[in-house]
Amino acid sequence: MRLLRLGPAGSEKLAALDDDDRAHDLTGIVESLVPTPENLQAIREAVTSGRLPELSTGQRVGAPIPRPGKIVCIGLNYRDHAAETGAAIPPEPVLFMKAPNTVVGPEDTVLVPRNSVKTDWEVELALVIGRTARYLDSAEDGLACIGGYAISHDVSEREFQIERGGTWDKGKNAETFNPFGPWIVPADQIEDPQNLALKLWVNGELKQDGKTSDMIFEVGEIVHYLSQFMVLEPGDVINTGTPAGVALGRPDPKPYLRAGDVVELEVEGLGRQRQVLEQA
Amino acid sequence: MRLLRLGPAGSEKLAALDDDDRAHDLTGIVESLVPTPENLQAIREAVTSGRLPELSTGQRVGAPIPRPGKIVCIGLNYRDHAAETGAAIPPEPVLFMKAPNTVVGPEDTVLVPRNSVKTDWEVELALVIGRTARYLDSAEDGLACIGGYAISHDVSEREFQIERGGTWDKGKNAETFNPFGPWIVPADQIEDPQNLALKLWVNGELKQDGKTSDMIFEVGEIVHYLSQFMVLEPGDVINTGTPAGVALGRPDPKPYLRAGDVVELEVEGLGRQRQVLEQA
Repeated sequence: MRLLRLGPAGSEKLAALDDDDRAHDLTGIVESLVPTPENLQAIREAVTSGRLPELSTGQRVGAPIPRPGKIVCIGLNYRDHAAETGAAIPPEPVLFMKAPNTVVGPEDTVLVPRNSVKTDWEVELALVIGRTARYLDSAEDGLACIGGYAISHDVSEREFQIERGGTWDKGKNAETFNPFGPWIVPADQIEDPQNLALKLWVNGELKQDGKTSDMIFEVGEIVHYLSQFMVLEPGDVINTGTPAGVALGRPDPKPYLRAGDVVELEVEGLGRQRQVLEQA
Repeated sequence: MRLLRLGPAGSEKLAALDDDDRAHDLTGIVESLVPTPENLQAIREAVTSGRLPELSTGQRVGAPIPRPGKIVCIGLNYRDHAAETGAAIPPEPVLFMKAPNTVVGPEDTVLVPRNSVKTDWEVELALVIGRTARYLDSAEDGLACIGGYAISHDVSEREFQIERGGTWDKGKNAETFNPFGPWIVPADQIEDPQNLALKLWVNGELKQDGKTSDMIFEVGEIVHYLSQFMVLEPGDVINTGTPAGVALGRPDPKPYLRAGDVVELEVEGLGRQRQVLEQA
C-alpha cells in the first residue's frame, strides 16, 4: 500500500494505491496522510473493506503531505558526497532546515531562482515521522518513530548556500525546492531502509547512483539524535542526505541546472519523480 | 489596537485589545490574527461597531499566531552583538531558522534542554508578514509586506548552536525556544520600527538594553533581502536579531540560564514577556 494525493494543485484527494495499482479514495476516512499508527490502521481497514470508491490514477500527483510541520535535513551524510564537496566526514549529524512552503508534488515544475547560476540536484530518502520523538533513548526508539518513507528532491542553490554568508538555509528555501513523493510507503513495508538504491538522472544521464547502506548516520540514529535538540512531531519530514554525484562535486564548468533541464529521481521501493526546470 | 489570544493553551480565543485595555472577542470575525489587510480591516470594523462581547483580560495569553508558517531569523544584526560574540559585521544578512513548534506564549515556561549548560537569552523585534513577499524590488516594498510587529524571545543553546557541527539551527529549535507575543501591533500603528528600545532582564537585573536604530539591516531591507531567497507568506515570522548583552558575550563563568531563573523582555510599544525557566 502507498499513500498519495491525486488531483489538481490545491484540490487533491487522499488515496491509497493497492498492489494492483488501483487508487482507493480515502475521503472521509482520514484527515491527512500523516502515517500515525491510527491513520495507518484506519486506512488499511478501509481499503480491506473493499467499499471505497476508486479514483483515476491518470491525474496529477500532489505531495502526500503538502505542508509538513517542519523539514529537517541532514547534510554530508554519505561518505562519497562529503568527499566530493571537499568536506570532512562529520563526527555527528550536520543539520539544516527547509521551510514547509518549499514542498511541491513529484512532477511539478521546479523553478531556478532569479539570479541563480548554481542550482543543483540531490536525491534523498525522506523519513516521515509517525510518532512524537522527544529525548529518545536509542536508535531503535528512533526507528519506531518513523511512520513512513518517501523521496525528497533537496534542490539546492550552491552560491546562496555557501557563498552568501550565514547558514546553508539560504540556499535551500527557494519556492519549489522540495519535490516530495510520489507517495508515502508505510515503514512496516520497507524491510531494510539501509539497503535501498537511490538514483538521479539529468536529461536522461545518470548522475547519482548510491545506496542507503553508505549513510554515515542511519535513519534510526538520525531520529534519536535530532530528538535531543528538538521535538519531532507526526508529519514532520527528515531529508537524510544525498550520495555523491551532484553538480557541485564535478569539474568546472560544473553542470548546474537550467531552464529546460529534466531531472528524474528514484529510490528503490518508493517510486519515481520527474521535474522540468523553468526560470522563476 | 493590539491582537492577542486569551485562554488556556489549546483553547485560546482571538481578541483585540483597545486603548482602554478592554478585550473584544473576535470569534467569528476572523480565523486567525495573521495581519493581512483583509483581517485588519475586518477586525477594526468589528471593534468599532461596539457589538463584540468583552473577554476577561485576567487570563493566560497565548502566542498570537500559534504555529507560524515559518520562522526566519537574522543573526548578528546589531553591531554591538556581533562584536561581543567575536564575529565580524556581516556584509549581508545572516539567516537561520526556527521550527514553528518552538512557539509558546509570552508567559509560558521555557525549558532548559536536557544536557544543556549554555542556554542563553535574546530579545528581538519580530516582524509578522501580512502580504506575500517574493522577489521584491526594494526595501520600501519589503516594509509594505510587514503586517505587524511583536516580541520574540529567540532562546538559544550555544553549545548546540556552535560546538556540535553543522548550522546554528541545532541550537535554536528546542521546545519552548520561541516565546512570542504578548500581542501583534499592526504595522501602521508603529511610527518608526527603527526607533524602538529593547530590554531584557534576568532575575530582575538588566542584561540587554538596545535600540532598533542600531540594526545593521533595517526591517524593510530584511524582507526585501529574504524575498530573493524564499517566498514569505502572510503569518510567517521574522526574528530580526538581538542587541548586545547575551550570556555568550560575558566573561567566564558566563551566566547561562538555569531552572528557576526568571527572564523578562520588553520592546517599546509591543508589551512585555516574562518566563520562568524549568528543566526539561
